[in-house]
Amino acid sequence: MRADYDLGFLLQYENVAWYEEGVVTILDRRRYPRERVFVACRSVLEVANAITDMVTQSGGPPTAAGMAMALQAGISKHKSKADFYEDLTHAAKLLIDARPTTRTHMERVTKAAIEVALLAREEGQDPAEAVFRHTVEAMEHKYKRILRSARSLVDYFPSHGTILTQCYGETIVGLMIREAKERQKTIKMICAETRPYFQGARLTASLAFDMGVDVTVITDNMPGYVMSKGIIDVFTSASDVITMDGHVINKIGTFQMAMMANHFGIPYYPSGEPDLRHPTPQTITIEERDGEEVLLAMGIKTAMDGVKGYYPAFDITPPQYITGIVTDGGVFLPGEVYRYHEK
Amino acid sequence: MRADYDLGFLLQYENVAWYEEGVVTILDRRRYPRERVFVACRSVLEVANAITDMVTQSGGPPTAAGMAMALQAGISKHKSKADFYEDLTHAAKLLIDARPTTRTHMERVTKAAIEVALLAREEGQDPAEAVFRHTVEAMEHKYKRILRSARSLVDYFPSHGTILTQCYGETIVGLMIREAKERQKTIKMICAETRPYFQGARLTASLAFDMGVDVTVITDNMPGYVMSKGIIDVFTSASDVITMDGHVINKIGTFQMAMMANHFGIPYYPSGEPDLRHPTPQTITIEERDGEEVLLAMGIKTAMDGVKGYYPAFDITPPQYITGIVTDGGVFLPGEVYRYHEK
Repeated sequence: MRADYDLGFLLQYENVAWYEEGVVTILDRRRYPRERVFVACRSVLEVANAITDMVTQSGGPPTAAGMAMALQAGISKHKSKADFYEDLTHAAKLLIDARPTTRTHMERVTKAAIEVALLAREEGQDPAEAVFRHTVEAMEHKYKRILRSARSLVDYFPSHGTILTQCYGETIVGLMIREAKERQKTIKMICAETRPYFQGARLTASLAFDMGVDVTVITDNMPGYVMSKGIIDVFTSASDVITMDGHVINKIGTFQMAMMANHFGIPYYPSGEPDLRHPTPQTITIEERDGEEVLLAMGIKTAMDGVKGYYPAFDITPPQYITGIVTDGGVFLPGEVYRYHEK
Repeated sequence: MRADYDLGFLLQYENVAWYEEGVVTILDRRRYPRERVFVACRSVLEVANAITDMVTQSGGPPTAAGMAMALQAGISKHKSKADFYEDLTHAAKLLIDARPTTRTHMERVTKAAIEVALLAREEGQDPAEAVFRHTVEAMEHKYKRILRSARSLVDYFPSHGTILTQCYGETIVGLMIREAKERQKTIKMICAETRPYFQGARLTASLAFDMGVDVTVITDNMPGYVMSKGIIDVFTSASDVITMDGHVINKIGTFQMAMMANHFGIPYYPSGEPDLRHPTPQTITIEERDGEEVLLAMGIKTAMDGVKGYYPAFDITPPQYITGIVTDGGVFLPGEVYRYHEK
């Protein structure tokens, strides 16, 4: 069914899965981008195991789950209605149990898939095709929103210039590059590698290179020097949370980059959506992960046993270091980002 | 001969070598601190090969060469004066040729060793013992100077507090820790790991732990966050060059750490010696090393082939971010550091 949809961009650059002829194919994010390898799953259990084993991560599992439900609908479509429903319910359970952190998301995705499959069957349509289409539409809806943000962000890119990034902003990275290309803005990218997990090097830089961008990785101790050389035009990042009063919570390091950008007069445009649950940063708890993770580089220990590590996973950038917050509803001054929800 | 000298501290914590009973023993810095392994050399050729193979680095090769000359003097001491001189000259040549970057240093060290050996022989003393003592004295002279700096630096440490470090400052790190202990200052250390080669994690943090310090490694994107939490009392680093007008050239990342320390009101005390050859930073060329080195973490590639890396190895911290420059002749305001040479 892949050819029916213009999914080229999404399939190529996102951590997605798709269903075609009895197989759910999932990009193996554990090995990407060093290798572009796909895991082929011929049962829902195989998809669930792939999710458990982190074959796909972040935005990937809901899509993989939707595709797995399409697979099950295809396998069971000639059974009685009761058996069909039972098979789908069992499939949903496997997917929901795959990983604790994706549980809520999976419950929602599989519930919707079952409804779509049952309705299609009643209406005499192919339930597998219906679930597949529904999953693609969900992806497309998400991407359309992010594309609106990407377009607003690219408004601030120069015609020729260099963009500094932090960590991996998921979907918006690919969309901002594509958008810049479409508008004939020739951007170079400099990506901070983002220790301890190197998402900037592994994911952002690799994706950018793959899309034809002139891209350079720097270590996390270099942004200040690079900014001081006057070669950065815009600094951008995604965000994990944006508070209603304009603080940006994002991967550790964003704060010091934003502070230095401010010092050097370089605009910082984070993207995301202000979160009604967080009026101020007072309600934010910075996740402190196992310090041992900081003492590993690509899996290799860097210091003597006994040395401790400290791993605050995120930091908080206050509004005074933010030029504008890019949302799917336009760009806001950080102090006015609460207006996003007034629209 | 080791027991004759109170070299415990130096031998344990520095990248040194010593001569004892026909063997030059060299700490293997390629494996330290993960393992404390020594390479035993029974000939000057073996010492030269160890230097070529980077068993010892930085301040180590001159000491290893001095010890190798003591070894040769011991082996050849019963030969005729002409043969004795020829053996030592041949030994010197092996050491001088061991590594291009240590050539000048080695010429000086081996020339002095030959003079010392010949004089000792003429005076009826053991030439091996004399060369050994001379080598130890050279080490001691260097350490005495650095100890004066360490003492001045520790003056600025609180009785109980936390010191932030960048990279590995070689000898002064161990001496400042020992000095703080002797004065009953209970310091904790936070070490920025210092990508791309992790000297902060591999060397500084490991050494500090080994000396009984409560030490924590952070990645290079964390200093701003850690400073913002108010837990850093002093930031310190060594320096590669200090200009006569008070700019500090040091490992990449020092600049942004100093800038942030300044922002948060945390004093920054770099140590070193102002260099008469550099009146201002105008004469400094920042070494740009192979960008591929930035794309490796503990030897493993972080990004897709085709992504570039950029590796400015050092940066320049201007005087306005420096609280005081610590030298073996006292501490200077950065704008007055030229006075060091007036003394």
